[in-house]
Amino acid sequence: MSGSVYLRDERAHLITENECMTDKPFTRRLCSCCSYATVRKRLPILNWLPQYSLQWLKLDLIAGLTVGLTVVPQALAYAEVAGLPVQYGLYSSFMGCFVYCVLGTSKDITLGPTAIMSLLCASYIDHDPIYAVLLTFLCGIIQCVIGILHLGFLLDFISFPVLKGFICAAAITIGFGQVKNILGLHNIPQQFVLQVYYTFLRIHETRVGDVTLGLICIVILLCLKFMKGHMKSTEPNTSFLVKSCCTIIWFFATARNAVVVLSAAVVAFVFTDHNLDVFTLTGKTAKGLPPFRPPFFSEKTENETLSFKDITEDLGAGLAVIPLMGLLESISIAKAFGSENDYRIDTNQEILAIGLTNVLGSFVSSYPVTGSFGRTAVNSQTGSCTPAGGLVTGSVVLLSLAYLMPLFYYIPKAALASVIICAVLPMFDYTIFKKLWKVKKMDMLPFLLTFIMCFWEIQYGIVAGVILSSFILLYRVSRPQIQISGEGVVVLKLQSELNFPAMQYFSDKLYKEALKASPPRSAIVDFHRVNYIDYTVVKEMEDLLRQFKDKKLSLVFTRLSKEVLSVFLAANLKGFTCSHSVEAALQSLTGTETLR
Amino acid sequence: MSGSVYLRDERAHLITENECMTDKPFTRRLCSCCSYATVRKRLPILNWLPQYSLQWLKLDLIAGLTVGLTVVPQALAYAEVAGLPVQYGLYSSFMGCFVYCVLGTSKDITLGPTAIMSLLCASYIDHDPIYAVLLTFLCGIIQCVIGILHLGFLLDFISFPVLKGFICAAAITIGFGQVKNILGLHNIPQQFVLQVYYTFLRIHETRVGDVTLGLICIVILLCLKFMKGHMKSTEPNTSFLVKSCCTIIWFFATARNAVVVLSAAVVAFVFTDHNLDVFTLTGKTAKGLPPFRPPFFSEKTENETLSFKDITEDLGAGLAVIPLMGLLESISIAKAFGSENDYRIDTNQEILAIGLTNVLGSFVSSYPVTGSFGRTAVNSQTGSCTPAGGLVTGSVVLLSLAYLMPLFYYIPKAALASVIICAVLPMFDYTIFKKLWKVKKMDMLPFLLTFIMCFWEIQYGIVAGVILSSFILLYRVSRPQIQISGEGVVVLKLQSELNFPAMQYFSDKLYKEALKASPPRSAIVDFHRVNYIDYTVVKEMEDLLRQFKDKKLSLVFTRLSKEVLSVFLAANLKGFTCSHSVEAALQSLTGTETLR
Repeated sequence: MSGSVYLRDERAHLITENECMTDKPFTRRLCSCCSYATVRKRLPILNWLPQYSLQWLKLDLIAGLTVGLTVVPQALAYAEVAGLPVQYGLYSSFMGCFVYCVLGTSKDITLGPTAIMSLLCASYIDHDPIYAVLLTFLCGIIQCVIGILHLGFLLDFISFPVLKGFICAAAITIGFGQVKNILGLHNIPQQFVLQVYYTFLRIHETRVGDVTLGLICIVILLCLKFMKGHMKSTEPNTSFLVKSCCTIIWFFATARNAVVVLSAAVVAFVFTDHNLDVFTLTGKTAKGLPPFRPPFFSEKTENETLSFKDITEDLGAGLAVIPLMGLLESISIAKAFGSENDYRIDTNQEILAIGLTNVLGSFVSSYPVTGSFGRTAVNSQTGSCTPAGGLVTGSVVLLSLAYLMPLFYYIPKAALASVIICAVLPMFDYTIFKKLWKVKKMDMLPFLLTFIMCFWEIQYGIVAGVILSSFILLYRVSRPQIQISGEGVVVLKLQSELNFPAMQYFSDKLYKEALKASPPRSAIVDFHRVNYIDYTVVKEMEDLLRQFKDKKLSLVFTRLSKEVLSVFLAANLKGFTCSHSVEAALQSLTGTETLR
Repeated sequence: MSGSVYLRDERAHLITENECMTDKPFTRRLCSCCSYATVRKRLPILNWLPQYSLQWLKLDLIAGLTVGLTVVPQALAYAEVAGLPVQYGLYSSFMGCFVYCVLGTSKDITLGPTAIMSLLCASYIDHDPIYAVLLTFLCGIIQCVIGILHLGFLLDFISFPVLKGFICAAAITIGFGQVKNILGLHNIPQQFVLQVYYTFLRIHETRVGDVTLGLICIVILLCLKFMKGHMKSTEPNTSFLVKSCCTIIWFFATARNAVVVLSAAVVAFVFTDHNLDVFTLTGKTAKGLPPFRPPFFSEKTENETLSFKDITEDLGAGLAVIPLMGLLESISIAKAFGSENDYRIDTNQEILAIGLTNVLGSFVSSYPVTGSFGRTAVNSQTGSCTPAGGLVTGSVVLLSLAYLMPLFYYIPKAALASVIICAVLPMFDYTIFKKLWKVKKMDMLPFLLTFIMCFWEIQYGIVAGVILSSFILLYRVSRPQIQISGEGVVVLKLQSELNFPAMQYFSDKLYKEALKASPPRSAIVDFHRVNYIDYTVVKEMEDLLRQFKDKKLSLVFTRLSKEVLSVFLAANLKGFTCSHSVEAALQSLTGTETLR
């Protein structure tokens, strides 16, 4: 008996909690919108700025500078992946640093161009900067709307296997996409299958200079990375010389992208100065800072004028895929680093930060940006304390734009390609195939579907994966486990929730066990695990109750939660009876039957 | 202690049942495919034919004849709704009767043209019989595939509110679509909104003859229906005269459609014979039986040749909507009558029967057919015993085609319109608005969305309704109820299953209650209600375990089912511990903590 009282208490607790969540008075909600707590939630800078210290400043400075030395070469390279002139990479790299400093809730995340977003954009913008900038603007607006409407939970439907399938495929696509630059091939189509075909078809056109430089760069990058991974922390009693050496190696290893690209540019400059054309160079770029102006909403080409409607139609599915993938990439990175460094991010606030970065970014000719895994890792490892490091990173990018652009002419494309290849190589996690097979074979399906379809078109892969994993989930929801027991009177215990797609299945089971049995028998349905029912369930139960009544049998519901009971009572079903326990129901039913 | 043993037993029972379902050896499955039981399942006629009796024959004859007298006028009228020449209605009405007699599992269902399918087809076939017949063929093939692959469960995702919203909207659309025929207006567009607009715009063109005849027909039909509904069963001691009168009234009331249409045709013939053109007549129709030939897979018009690809592209979404809606309509009717007359249908067998009817129907120029609610009701009420009544119905249709076609010239369109209006009127269930509001307000959303969108395009309405109701379901799945209790060590009891979209939500809760609490505390997670976990859940748990370990706290899982435990063990998580009960876990945790 004490057990049943306990159960009732549990339920009361649950319902009260629920009511608190939904029935908050409107006025209180309105008040809470304007409170200082809400302002602090919307402007996370207010949480850390008052406590800012000199110690933090030092660490943030170093982290910001290191990230800056990473972002400049990466930005140039990713612009190439997106199919845009290299300066657009830098245009996209500073706005996120400033905006995120004010609005971000993670100390590690750095927003900017990334390999995956560049690849996604490439398939929609068709080498046209006007398309890219407008896409950034629209993508930002959509992300802001998602953040304001608190639709962040949509990202929960991208399951881990789908995410992994997509990342593995993207790593291969992006990595292989740079092989043509290492080999110095031109005019290779963008679609993955064609790219593979034409790269191998024209492999004899390989330029020796490019391939030599590219391979050397890759080897150096890998060595530096390996050194960094295996550096031991210096013991306190080591000499000054050893300490200095360690610091220098650490600096070179951390800023390896900048070091390699700069060295390659110097080599290329020397060769060019001697009139030796052995490398494919980046070539002429626009000089100086980008203009601050709203994005163009239409485009005039030689032949025709493209209206806003034409451009949005061309962008098509990109307007759904790019905002969502941008959010997914950044938020999953933020969550990963949050879990490592023991803090939690506010998903909707993060979404707002990214959205606003893109909206403002479109005023400085940025293409869509998101959180970068590689640079976030650099930021975290160099010991950033707050998002203030972003201010330093942003300044480094702006300085490069203002003063270094003429130097970028000499950067060999093969060097940039080697930066990208080394950045995406670790993204391909081959162990996932084995893990999924071992742990949950069913999850191989959405993983493989996403992985394979992504080679056709990235967005198809993701959409197909999400649909398949939702479908598997829905199928499971539609087939609840039902435990059947009892002699004379059949007892059906629902082992999980009862939703509309499951109702027909449940009704068939009940019919088979009770009405179709010989002789037909009464039934008790245990709703202990059902917290919610919908109208389809009520309607089918009405039918079943009638059928039981026609055969002069009983159908009794037991252990209904308060909410489920109120739905049944509102429906006013004929012959509806319920009981607080299976035992009581059994007793009353067998009692009646003895009397008859 | 006995409680926990009981629990373990339950689980064992469940798992064994599951294993039986999935691990059936392939050879045994193969054997069961060829057994006599399977043949009987696939040819349900073998179940009733050996026991067929004279008594059954008499009742089936009467039922078949009555349905025949209903189907002929309805078929002519529905062809008009589908935008096809009237004879196509009859072409579509006989194949289903013969096929269903052999393959059907419901004694009541009669397959043939229906109001809703005609409306759906109208929007795809654009008055072209070649499109209609090819659509029938493809629709049949798709339905057969659904039946063979046992995909019938897909229909479970069309919830009751969506179905009701669609039926209510279809009743209005079809009913209003016939107002133009009652008024005798021509060249009214098909789209609902335009139809309403133009009908009212051109209401002054109303033809007095048509409107008079139409209204009289409606009144007579409603009176006859009312009489039938209120006829008392004759008492045994009434005179022969009263009995005969009752039988005659019953016959007229049951075959009211045929009576009204025939009478109207006679009136129209008399008027026409006197050269008075007061009614819009059906006009010339093709004579005789349709040719038996495969459907055309391409079409030559005056200007161009449409290939198979062109036609299927034109049919577009119709190739998904029409097969599925056809199945849904027929199966929901079969289920309704099964529950009334105490039998259950075999969904996948029904799907095969409908699919094959459509495939074979396309050889006799049929347009897509499905189960008709009105005629099934007539069949059931006149006391059909087996699907053999269909043979009589089919013969009536064939005889009409062979000998009565010249008479159909004189059938006034207003009379056919009145037949349709009286048939679809009861489909509009205005009480559903009130019921849904009272019982489950949340279900109003998919209902209203479907209802309103159906006026734009029927298929958009259904698709939108299914997506919205699946979305509501998925949202609920992604936010499981979690009961939190415990002091010192926090205990989280999951009140429902834990699936991938719920994992982030759960992880946030756990973080907030345990790791973020001050002081941080160990946690126990009760998996009692979780029967299944996916890789996303495992992955997130791995992260959480690491975070707990970093803070030197424990995360203990309790009451894992055998399946869930095996997944966790396969993943080989670091620091994974589990316990058979919450109490034992609490004891071990507090014990450890006292020791430390």
